[in-house]
Amino acid sequence: MFENRTDLALEERESFEGDGGEIGGVALREWRCHGSSIRMTEVSILNEKGAESMGKPMGTYLTMEDPGLSETEDAYCEAAAGELGRQLASLIRKNCASTMAGLSILVAGLGNRQVTPDSLGPRVVDGLSMNRHLRTEPGRRNGTYLYTAEKAGRTVHPVLSGIHPGVMAQTGMETAEIVRGVVRESRPDLVIAVDALAARNVHRLASTIQLTDTGIHPGSGVGNHRRGMTRENLGVPVIAIGVPTVVGAAAIVHGTVNALVRTLTASKEGSRYGEYIRELDSDSQYELIRELLEPEFGAMFVTPQDMDERICKLSAAIAEGIRRAVERLEEER
Amino acid sequence: MFENRTDLALEERESFEGDGGEIGGVALREWRCHGSSIRMTEVSILNEKGAESMGKPMGTYLTMEDPGLSETEDAYCEAAAGELGRQLASLIRKNCASTMAGLSILVAGLGNRQVTPDSLGPRVVDGLSMNRHLRTEPGRRNGTYLYTAEKAGRTVHPVLSGIHPGVMAQTGMETAEIVRGVVRESRPDLVIAVDALAARNVHRLASTIQLTDTGIHPGSGVGNHRRGMTRENLGVPVIAIGVPTVVGAAAIVHGTVNALVRTLTASKEGSRYGEYIRELDSDSQYELIRELLEPEFGAMFVTPQDMDERICKLSAAIAEGIRRAVERLEEER
Amino acid sequence: MFENRTDLALEERESFEGDGGEIGGVALREWRCHGSSIRMTEVSILNEKGAESMGKPMGTYLTMEDPGLSETEDAYCEAAAGELGRQLASLIRKNCASTMAGLSILVAGLGNRQVTPDSLGPRVVDGLSMNRHLRTEPGRRNGTYLYTAEKAGRTVHPVLSGIHPGVMAQTGMETAEIVRGVVRESRPDLVIAVDALAARNVHRLASTIQLTDTGIHPGSGVGNHRRGMTRENLGVPVIAIGVPTVVGAAAIVHGTVNALVRTLTASKEGSRYGEYIRELDSDSQYELIRELLEPEFGAMFVTPQDMDERICKLSAAIAEGIRRAVERLEEER
Amino acid sequence: MFENRTDLALEERESFEGDGGEIGGVALREWRCHGSSIRMTEVSILNEKGAESMGKPMGTYLTMEDPGLSETEDAYCEAAAGELGRQLASLIRKNCASTMAGLSILVAGLGNRQVTPDSLGPRVVDGLSMNRHLRTEPGRRNGTYLYTAEKAGRTVHPVLSGIHPGVMAQTGMETAEIVRGVVRESRPDLVIAVDALAARNVHRLASTIQLTDTGIHPGSGVGNHRRGMTRENLGVPVIAIGVPTVVGAAAIVHGTVNALVRTLTASKEGSRYGEYIRELDSDSQYELIRELLEPEFGAMFVTPQDMDERICKLSAAIAEGIRRAVERLEEER
Repeated sequence: MFENRTDLALEERESFEGDGGEIGGVALREWRCHGSSIRMTEVSILNEKGAESMGKPMGTYLTMEDPGLSETEDAYCEAAAGELGRQLASLIRKNCASTMAGLSILVAGLGNRQVTPDSLGPRVVDGLSMNRHLRTEPGRRNGTYLYTAEKAGRTVHPVLSGIHPGVMAQTGMETAEIVRGVVRESRPDLVIAVDALAARNVHRLASTIQLTDTGIHPGSGVGNHRRGMTRENLGVPVIAIGVPTVVGAAAIVHGTVNALVRTLTASKEGSRYGEYIRELDSDSQYELIRELLEPEFGAMFVTPQDMDERICKLSAAIAEGIRRAVERLEEER
Repeated sequence: MFENRTDLALEERESFEGDGGEIGGVALREWRCHGSSIRMTEVSILNEKGAESMGKPMGTYLTMEDPGLSETEDAYCEAAAGELGRQLASLIRKNCASTMAGLSILVAGLGNRQVTPDSLGPRVVDGLSMNRHLRTEPGRRNGTYLYTAEKAGRTVHPVLSGIHPGVMAQTGMETAEIVRGVVRESRPDLVIAVDALAARNVHRLASTIQLTDTGIHPGSGVGNHRRGMTRENLGVPVIAIGVPTVVGAAAIVHGTVNALVRTLTASKEGSRYGEYIRELDSDSQYELIRELLEPEFGAMFVTPQDMDERICKLSAAIAEGIRRAVERLEEER
Repeated sequence: MFENRTDLALEERESFEGDGGEIGGVALREWRCHGSSIRMTEVSILNEKGAESMGKPMGTYLTMEDPGLSETEDAYCEAAAGELGRQLASLIRKNCASTMAGLSILVAGLGNRQVTPDSLGPRVVDGLSMNRHLRTEPGRRNGTYLYTAEKAGRTVHPVLSGIHPGVMAQTGMETAEIVRGVVRESRPDLVIAVDALAARNVHRLASTIQLTDTGIHPGSGVGNHRRGMTRENLGVPVIAIGVPTVVGAAAIVHGTVNALVRTLTASKEGSRYGEYIRELDSDSQYELIRELLEPEFGAMFVTPQDMDERICKLSAAIAEGIRRAVERLEEER
Repeated sequence: MFENRTDLALEERESFEGDGGEIGGVALREWRCHGSSIRMTEVSILNEKGAESMGKPMGTYLTMEDPGLSETEDAYCEAAAGELGRQLASLIRKNCASTMAGLSILVAGLGNRQVTPDSLGPRVVDGLSMNRHLRTEPGRRNGTYLYTAEKAGRTVHPVLSGIHPGVMAQTGMETAEIVRGVVRESRPDLVIAVDALAARNVHRLASTIQLTDTGIHPGSGVGNHRRGMTRENLGVPVIAIGVPTVVGAAAIVHGTVNALVRTLTASKEGSRYGEYIRELDSDSQYELIRELLEPEFGAMFVTPQDMDERICKLSAAIAEGIRRAVERLEEER
């Protein structure tokens, strides 16, 4: 039917709130970052039951929210990049057996550079300095790196490589095929996939970063990646960094119509209309809304007029966050 | 209040249809193009009364509609470009006292190249070959051109120049100031302003071209041009070519909620609910919808996921249409 | 030492002309295209001896030359695209055992989109409509295709997919690794690699297309692809389409200095100076020129100021040529 | 004849060094910046005699040189941006009668964004936040500004606006016409024109910034701006910021051939060849070199392969330098 999709585990979780708030197999933890306005939420889907309720695979979904992230203060990006670096480093440690020997990371910037709200991934890759080609790898086989950079006395970071796989309409291939091919050839220890997401709530656009170790799943992202990118099909851990940049047009209309129906039901004449609305509630209300929604809305999205500037700042913050995570991991070695 | 704006005179006209269809001071003419699926509508606002009713200035608004314009058949663009060339040439003849001496035309590609649905104007300018700098203009003063190209034996077109003025957030200036400055220096006989428009109806997105001799008015276009570009403030006739590429998010929600209310009113239980709805109709219904609509919606827009490809094709068709018009005018000399 | 490299087999062949013109293991064939100004040259390197003399692998190198290719006449591109389509189809037939069952082709657009003379490859891929994702492939296993497009009654082309692998400085990976990964996953029958080349002669810039079935070799192209892309390392035939867009700065200086030395030697005072120059000829002349050439010249290139426009036209002509080849192959089935 | 042009006053000055070093009407001052590797040179052309000798108009030409400017250390950009800010503020003070009332500055980013070495100007404008449209200007007439930003309690900077006028091949208009039109409409107190320059010496590419209060002159810049942008034709002071990004191909060949001739002359066999070369020196040497140089070289340029990255860093440093200058001027009020 009409699409009312969200890629944010946080929003999926919120949709259960009316039902008492407890969902079996799903744990929730919330906190505020010290000294900043960032609000963190961790949704952990612990078992199959939780996965089924949430419509998302088991794993950790971390959300950084700040209304200020979309504002133009440079200061905030500093805080966001710092916190992203911390959380990303911790998620990498959790997912990569040993980071001691040095990590090789492939950053996949998903999305279509030509479509403003879908250009987040490519721009993050643009903002990173790749160094995999600068390293000689003679010691790779016995577990140690011999970097040319090391000899030159420069700080040594984990080995970074990156790709913009493009989108299916441009390449004729599934994005997952391209990334899998590159993973098989270049053998990174980890893939970080950056993608633009769809949210339900316009307030979350460009002000929320979701970080998860479950990878990219079919139907997530602004574009449609039909096959996912997960540890199962890529063979290495996949950490996904996503930012909601669009809301489905259907979601917005649906939300408003629901609000209207709720308002009518709760009106002072509620005793009379409530009856009618309750009748509708089960089947015909759904049917009614479905008819009202134009079929085109599934392929339409809603995005703010200033998304171009927001994406610029967000992609800079995420690139900086990845750099920070990589520095942290290096310092720990 | 919330914005439910359309830049299409056709849609403004349609909103009166419930009221009997006749609007004082507004004439309507419809026809089909021979041998193609193009539907033409001409809305003429004849006097001040019509202008007030329509919320648009007096003048001719020509709309070319074809559901096929957004499809990938190359053939159609041929038909669209041909028809656009014909209509544009006729509008130029009507607005420029004498085209006999050769015309100098400035094409202004309005909008933000970085924002997909707002990139139509800049892409049309990219698609045209400017030739003003190739012409020597010794004979200008006594009303004739002496083209260097003419001497070289090539076909002579009207003199074309073009500019991408950018948008206010990039330049810190009103777009109209930039265009006016360029007009004053380069003294074209005519400005053709190309812009992306906002529509009310998603079916019109990327499948409609509006052509008008009234110029660009405040509030029109996807971006916000606070001062208009008209014969009055530029000093030369201004023909605007626009294509709707977005629908305001508020318009979509508003439309759906209206449909819901209509449906409820007309329902078989209408006698009971109709009463309630009719009460709401005047003031409180409006208030209700207003509350439901999030204030953010004013700055949000709805656009199809494949707008990038559509804009590519449309801008090619419009550039070709301008070339055809220019050829027609030249042949007539 | 200093680089005086050419990626054109034709230019390599020309450098032997002073020596009598015959090179063992290298065959030369020249002709003119009927009804156009295109000059074709086929250099065939037949055996190891020829490969060693030429410094290029065995195979066929076809060169289409036309001074008009860089001019703005649209008509020419038609001729160039048509001839390229014919020659490419014939090269594909020669290299792909059977094209009867339908071919799957991966087009790799090599180079850096941000660097004007290196942007040819990415722009050719942009200009093609990929269709691999539109096909269902149930019949693949038993040797026949069942296209969804076929059912829809549209003309059926070979299956096209495409990739912009980027350059090493952007991705941290060898371009060949990325292409090989994509080949392994998507299993095309053939790779067409499009790349910008370096020439020795400025007259060939943007007016020559080289077509070869030997693939891409280390050191070829404007960027430096350290590992080649050949049938050996990709596992499928690789046809390379290249256009010279730069001349190494060293090559230009070297050429001019050589001309100066030749002029001095041949001067009327030649009896005296010739002696000196001949002394220099073997070792010290070389040494002298080497010292004059600044070491930076190796990393510098020479390119015309209007390369941006030329690349636009050339990439359109090559994309059209690929489409024509694909149509020809389809018609033969 | 062949072009051996430099846009750097510093290089023009150097070409006189063999002649004893003193040029009438031209003053030279050199110093090093404290705590950085930046070398400053100020060439002042004091009178008409100096202007004629140098082939450049009277005024101050300040050159910042640092071999490190093209290297990837972020630290340097800090030093370069700081020094540029200091020097630019001082040049603005010198040229604008009173900066006390608040300055309105128009930044013109000259050049072609599509051609890598010519994209400096547009990228600098992209890197600046314009604010002219955020200011209300009711108090302008009596010499004081009333900023909306001021009311909002934010730091107040001089009023910035910016434009990418494009190049003549894209617009069909002289760049100077467009800038003049915008100046007439928007009435800034000062124009800062940013442009990519041609140098003679490859070592200066992307490692030198030239700052001058003489504006832009015909023939300067990578593209060809046929009419200049000066105080005379724009009506307000014009400060030009330029970075050499190309060397004319002719300059490189000419330089090397000159070096060869010098070497031959100075060789141990000099007594014999010197004679011949000396004969050539006056007329026929020149004629000889002229014949050797291909006429195409005039339209060719030499640029490093990594110019894309260098331009990125340089444009960021210049945008930051402009911001710093603007801050300094504001603090002084």
